Amino acid sequence: MTDSIHRRKSEHIELSLSDEALGKGVTNGFDHYRFWHNALPEISFEQIDISTTFLDYNLKTPYLISSMTGGAEQAETINRNLAIAAAQQGWCFALGSTRVMVESEKYRSSFQIKRLAPSVPVIANIGAVQLNYGLTTDQCLRILEWTEADAFVLHLNTLQEVIQPEGDTDFADILPKIEELIKVLPVPVGVKEVGFGIDGSVAKMLTNAGARFIDVAGAGGTSWSQIEKLRSNEKIKKQAAEAFAGWGNPTADCLVDVKKVLPNQHLLASGGIRTGMDAAKAIALGANHVGFARGVLKDATNSAEAVVEWMKIRELELRMAMFGIGAKDVPALQKTNRLQKI
Amino acid sequence: MTDSIHRRKSEHIELSLSDEALGKGVTNGFDHYRFWHNALPEISFEQIDISTTFLDYNLKTPYLISSMTGGAEQAETINRNLAIAAAQQGWCFALGSTRVMVESEKYRSSFQIKRLAPSVPVIANIGAVQLNYGLTTDQCLRILEWTEADAFVLHLNTLQEVIQPEGDTDFADILPKIEELIKVLPVPVGVKEVGFGIDGSVAKMLTNAGARFIDVAGAGGTSWSQIEKLRSNEKIKKQAAEAFAGWGNPTADCLVDVKKVLPNQHLLASGGIRTGMDAAKAIALGANHVGFARGVLKDATNSAEAVVEWMKIRELELRMAMFGIGAKDVPALQKTNRLQKI
Amino acid sequence: MTDSIHRRKSEHIELSLSDEALGKGVTNGFDHYRFWHNALPEISFEQIDISTTFLDYNLKTPYLISSMTGGAEQAETINRNLAIAAAQQGWCFALGSTRVMVESEKYRSSFQIKRLAPSVPVIANIGAVQLNYGLTTDQCLRILEWTEADAFVLHLNTLQEVIQPEGDTDFADILPKIEELIKVLPVPVGVKEVGFGIDGSVAKMLTNAGARFIDVAGAGGTSWSQIEKLRSNEKIKKQAAEAFAGWGNPTADCLVDVKKVLPNQHLLASGGIRTGMDAAKAIALGANHVGFARGVLKDATNSAEAVVEWMKIRELELRMAMFGIGAKDVPALQKTNRLQKI
Amino acid sequence: MTDSIHRRKSEHIELSLSDEALGKGVTNGFDHYRFWHNALPEISFEQIDISTTFLDYNLKTPYLISSMTGGAEQAETINRNLAIAAAQQGWCFALGSTRVMVESEKYRSSFQIKRLAPSVPVIANIGAVQLNYGLTTDQCLRILEWTEADAFVLHLNTLQEVIQPEGDTDFADILPKIEELIKVLPVPVGVKEVGFGIDGSVAKMLTNAGARFIDVAGAGGTSWSQIEKLRSNEKIKKQAAEAFAGWGNPTADCLVDVKKVLPNQHLLASGGIRTGMDAAKAIALGANHVGFARGVLKDATNSAEAVVEWMKIRELELRMAMFGIGAKDVPALQKTNRLQKI
Ligand SMILES: Cc1cc2nc3c(=O)[nH]c(=O)nc-3n(C[C@H](O)[C@H](O)[C@H](O)COP(=O)(O)O)c2cc1C
Ligand SMILES: Cc1cc2nc3c(=O)[nH]c(=O)nc-3n(C[C@H](O)[C@H](O)[C@H](O)COP(=O)(O)O)c2cc1C
Ligand SMILES: Cc1cc2nc3c(=O)[nH]c(=O)nc-3n(C[C@H](O)[C@H](O)[C@H](O)COP(=O)(O)O)c2cc1C
Ligand SMILES: Cc1cc2nc3c(=O)[nH]c(=O)nc-3n(C[C@H](O)[C@H](O)[C@H](O)COP(=O)(O)O)c2cc1C
Repeated sequence: MTDSIHRRKSEHIELSLSDEALGKGVTNGFDHYRFWHNALPEISFEQIDISTTFLDYNLKTPYLISSMTGGAEQAETINRNLAIAAAQQGWCFALGSTRVMVESEKYRSSFQIKRLAPSVPVIANIGAVQLNYGLTTDQCLRILEWTEADAFVLHLNTLQEVIQPEGDTDFADILPKIEELIKVLPVPVGVKEVGFGIDGSVAKMLTNAGARFIDVAGAGGTSWSQIEKLRSNEKIKKQAAEAFAGWGNPTADCLVDVKKVLPNQHLLASGGIRTGMDAAKAIALGANHVGFARGVLKDATNSAEAVVEWMKIRELELRMAMFGIGAKDVPALQKTNRLQKI
Repeated sequence: MTDSIHRRKSEHIELSLSDEALGKGVTNGFDHYRFWHNALPEISFEQIDISTTFLDYNLKTPYLISSMTGGAEQAETINRNLAIAAAQQGWCFALGSTRVMVESEKYRSSFQIKRLAPSVPVIANIGAVQLNYGLTTDQCLRILEWTEADAFVLHLNTLQEVIQPEGDTDFADILPKIEELIKVLPVPVGVKEVGFGIDGSVAKMLTNAGARFIDVAGAGGTSWSQIEKLRSNEKIKKQAAEAFAGWGNPTADCLVDVKKVLPNQHLLASGGIRTGMDAAKAIALGANHVGFARGVLKDATNSAEAVVEWMKIRELELRMAMFGIGAKDVPALQKTNRLQKI
Repeated sequence: MTDSIHRRKSEHIELSLSDEALGKGVTNGFDHYRFWHNALPEISFEQIDISTTFLDYNLKTPYLISSMTGGAEQAETINRNLAIAAAQQGWCFALGSTRVMVESEKYRSSFQIKRLAPSVPVIANIGAVQLNYGLTTDQCLRILEWTEADAFVLHLNTLQEVIQPEGDTDFADILPKIEELIKVLPVPVGVKEVGFGIDGSVAKMLTNAGARFIDVAGAGGTSWSQIEKLRSNEKIKKQAAEAFAGWGNPTADCLVDVKKVLPNQHLLASGGIRTGMDAAKAIALGANHVGFARGVLKDATNSAEAVVEWMKIRELELRMAMFGIGAKDVPALQKTNRLQKI
Repeated sequence: MTDSIHRRKSEHIELSLSDEALGKGVTNGFDHYRFWHNALPEISFEQIDISTTFLDYNLKTPYLISSMTGGAEQAETINRNLAIAAAQQGWCFALGSTRVMVESEKYRSSFQIKRLAPSVPVIANIGAVQLNYGLTTDQCLRILEWTEADAFVLHLNTLQEVIQPEGDTDFADILPKIEELIKVLPVPVGVKEVGFGIDGSVAKMLTNAGARFIDVAGAGGTSWSQIEKLRSNEKIKKQAAEAFAGWGNPTADCLVDVKKVLPNQHLLASGGIRTGMDAAKAIALGANHVGFARGVLKDATNSAEAVVEWMKIRELELRMAMFGIGAKDVPALQKTNRLQKI
């Protein structure tokens, strides 16, 4: 079974790099928002401060690398490059699903990158549905130990599991199990989707169960119905997946919905974030941190330097958007009245 | 005259298979609705129950094959394939217009498929306008006898009859005749359009006249002005039909309108339904059953197996949409608040 | 000067036939309206009655040929074909500008077609601006005499005159002169635009001045800024005209606006009417008669038979639209609640 | 440093001529407005009066040439052609940034064109940010002396400075310095953007600081993020600039916003003005004067005659739009109720 996980992970990486991994007929929702330029910001560009705090770390940016990989052949390189770059630029780093660690030692090292990124939070990841398939608190504790992670994030991925050949589709009574796990784990636990979005009502249930942060992980970027469709050999699943190419709650809509219900929850925005402009809009809509997955993947297969350069572009875009509206730091951006719905 | 009916039916089948059979500038209306993903459904995918009841049958699905054919050369094969598949998958099966049965014995057998589908309702079909052209109650009774149908559905097809070379266009005083027929027939009688849609006000008149179910049969799929245009040799009709390529009430709009007026009538949605996603939306808008015509035709000319595979895709799509919003059965889907107007 | 009018008229006909004569970025406005199908009209298609009355004539249709031509080489043929067809099908026939009749005998006969169309109203036409350039009541009376017209229609064409090389652009104090002329002429006088539209406020002034009917002649079809642009050799006018390709009030918008202000004025809708579907919408929005210009021009250069066939298509479309919504005659169509704004 | 300014200016001219200089995904906003035709204007086209007053000059038009150039090789020719044409047609003429005059004598003459345009106002220009980089009141006085300008306009160009390799990006505390400069200078001082727009709140601050006119200089035309992107060799800036291709407040939106806040301020509209139709809309939305930059540049590299011809087209378009709605002069156009939001 672990071998099939390894193979799956490799296919995921490869397919994510192609444009067919993107949803169709759905956007990240940020195209419905525009910034209203402030011609006289009365600040110096050099003063603009994008630093934040997250999980007791002072971070140079409000950015994170979203959960992607680990456990696959390429994963070791990718994770190392990401960790080094994250540490250098002050990005939070979320690992991909660590389930495979439990089942085999083989690729365990690919997740053990905390030593490369001691200055930024590292987050371990696992599918919440595994709580219905035998994942124990003990195993989670061991994952924390192996990864030295500062936090844990559980992903909800219902439709991906349905289309996935080896999918685990029993999501009944997951919530009480999440609650229990959160009580026991010694680190903060958050919850995320994988590209179809967490809305206000779900975020509320999760927050009541103890989730310390929510990553909406909405639609508009990587689409798991598309990726699993490409992987599938079963005609029926393949064709049915087609009808879900546009499924999912746009990331911007999730943010607005969650913010309305939970004004104080720590909110992460991922899903189709392409530029620092998207990121600036996400923050103006209420996000505390903004995550990128697919967008950084290609450079991550290359080198830490390539990732750093990519990061610098995303940072400059954010600074420029802030300068353009006259927001001198992240709190000012969160409070801006210069984001217009169109 | 019956020979011309046979020829017409064959042409209908052939032309329906081409894309020119589709309306232009009109959609089924479901594109104006989106589901709002529920990341935490708290159900198991395997538990999702799409069974329904219709005409005193327990059915595995809320689906039906809409009235299409019979009486034409190919019709025997098509109807046999459809009946076998419908029985296997638990779909209701509506026959095409049975008028030809009355006029000739020749292709009568093509409608006699009840024995292949004893476990699902079979519905006989005839144009309501025939009540103005000599169709008698007695003949309807004989149709029921020959077909062993569980119900009768009358179709309203004004504009088709106008463009059709041999069209019967006197629709005056049809309603009282429908009312009379319904009183006499020993089975439930419903009414449908053929692709331009029944709205709330018409549905109300029909329900007052005793109709037990309404199939809105709206626009967005097969367009009879287009098909008859292709068949026609009369330049004037051909060109006039062109202006009606976008005519008709979108299926989704019909549903909403009928539901408002008749919250308790048994409602069938057909017309441009392409996937189980459309079907899920139709049910969320108030449909009890969802019908497919053109979409299944190609596989029906092939084999029962091909139809079964096609059905399984449509079923999986429906289940996935339900899982995606956390609706565990058809009543839950009907009550969902996760369908958004866009 | 009359020679230049002749040449101009010929160029107008030729250019009107090409697609470059159409405005860009503006529609007739009927695309913002849709009919809501009535599946059970309870009428017979044969009963549908599209007859109307206009200028004391009983007409088989609510249609008219809009003012187009006369005075040009081809005009004689065109007008004869149109007159014969109009008489046969029961369409009102409006002549093109008769100004040239006053200035030369040469092409006078091209306007003298009343004897070919005794059963339908014939309307004489002249530019209202000519009242500022020496046109006398006496000359208008002579035009009526020569043409045996049943009514007179004045056209307002400000922007056309500006771009036209030989344009008459003094439109000051035209209204009192229109009022005076109307008082004197022995036939009803109406007013029209030529493709940019008459709105409610202008229609009111004209009605107060005695206009017996208004032809809104709105945008969406023939664009005189485009045609005069094509004719012009002056670079400055040519380029300036380009910016006016989308100018004008859509015909549908004009109707709605005029109807609001003048619910009882006799209203003609022309400007971009392409089919009987457009016409049905125009009537449902308040028009009493619907006019076609460019659409019939090509067949009119051919033969009366070609025009008759074209007319029959437009009539069938209108009847079909009425059948589709269950309107049995023109007053029913005017009162329908089955036209939806989209 | 001055040499690099010279080179930059030349590159700006060259790049501005290509279509890559235009923003993407943003318009001037005038496409959301349409004029509502007045078929009966009751005026003569010849009477239409587009004259205005500005800076104590009586001007034949409400037009100006927006600040563009000077100090570059080609600038001398361009400015001479523009000045001669402006004087002939009665357009106000705004010079490009005169900063280079202070730093070198070399291209100083290119700004000294007042003698060619004594009958129209000439406006000197400089970046407001220079007040943070050593620009003194004395230097400004000398610029006035050298240019014999009738007014001064300061430009705000935050994002351009960020992307520009040699950019000056400290915009802190610029406002008090603007206020001070305005107090001292002997001519009226206005403020403008360079293509991202000044909105109501900024216009208010500037007006409170003494600005005598505001040129909104909004988005929809020349985009300085695009131009500086093309010039840049730094990969990070180049890619970040890409995300700003659609940045900026549409010119029409700026006008509406500023007008609401400052109904009496003298308002200039520039940014993506292409035709006299755009200009007419700008005036109807509240602009007193309308400026063109990129649109005239090509002809300006040619000859004064070419510029004059181009000006005549823009003037004719404006007159035609006014005639079309029946506005006989600029005040009437400003008060028209015939501009519709769509
Ligand atoms: C190659 C790849 C692998 C991923 N693996 C995981 C995973 O293991 N766990 C998880 O929670 N999300 C996973 N995701 C989802 C992302 O964390 C994120 O929620 C989603 O892709 C949306 O971001 P994007 O549009 O920027 O790619 C993966 C995404 C990609 C592209
Ligand atoms: C080939 C074909 C034949 C049809 N024949 C009939 C018929 O005999 N009676 C009827 O009521 N509807 C008939 N229909 C209409 C369908 O029942 C249905 O109302 C309509 O086609 C819309 O569904 P669709 O878009 O899924 O094709 C026919 C449709 C097709 C494609
Ligand atoms: C060739 C041609 C000539 C026309 N000549 C006249 C005319 O002399 N007088 C007039 O009032 N309108 C004239 N019109 C305008 C039409 O009467 C009508 O108002 C306008 O064309 C809009 O109709 P359409 O879009 O159907 O062409 C002419 C139109 C065409 C196409
Ligand atoms: C070649 C070029 C040079 C420009 N130089 C200046 C300048 O020096 N100072 C300034 O305030 N604006 C400058 N601008 C901006 C214009 O004044 C104007 O605000 C902007 O281009 C929008 O107008 P447009 O879309 O018509 O080009 C320049 C524009 C162009 C095209």
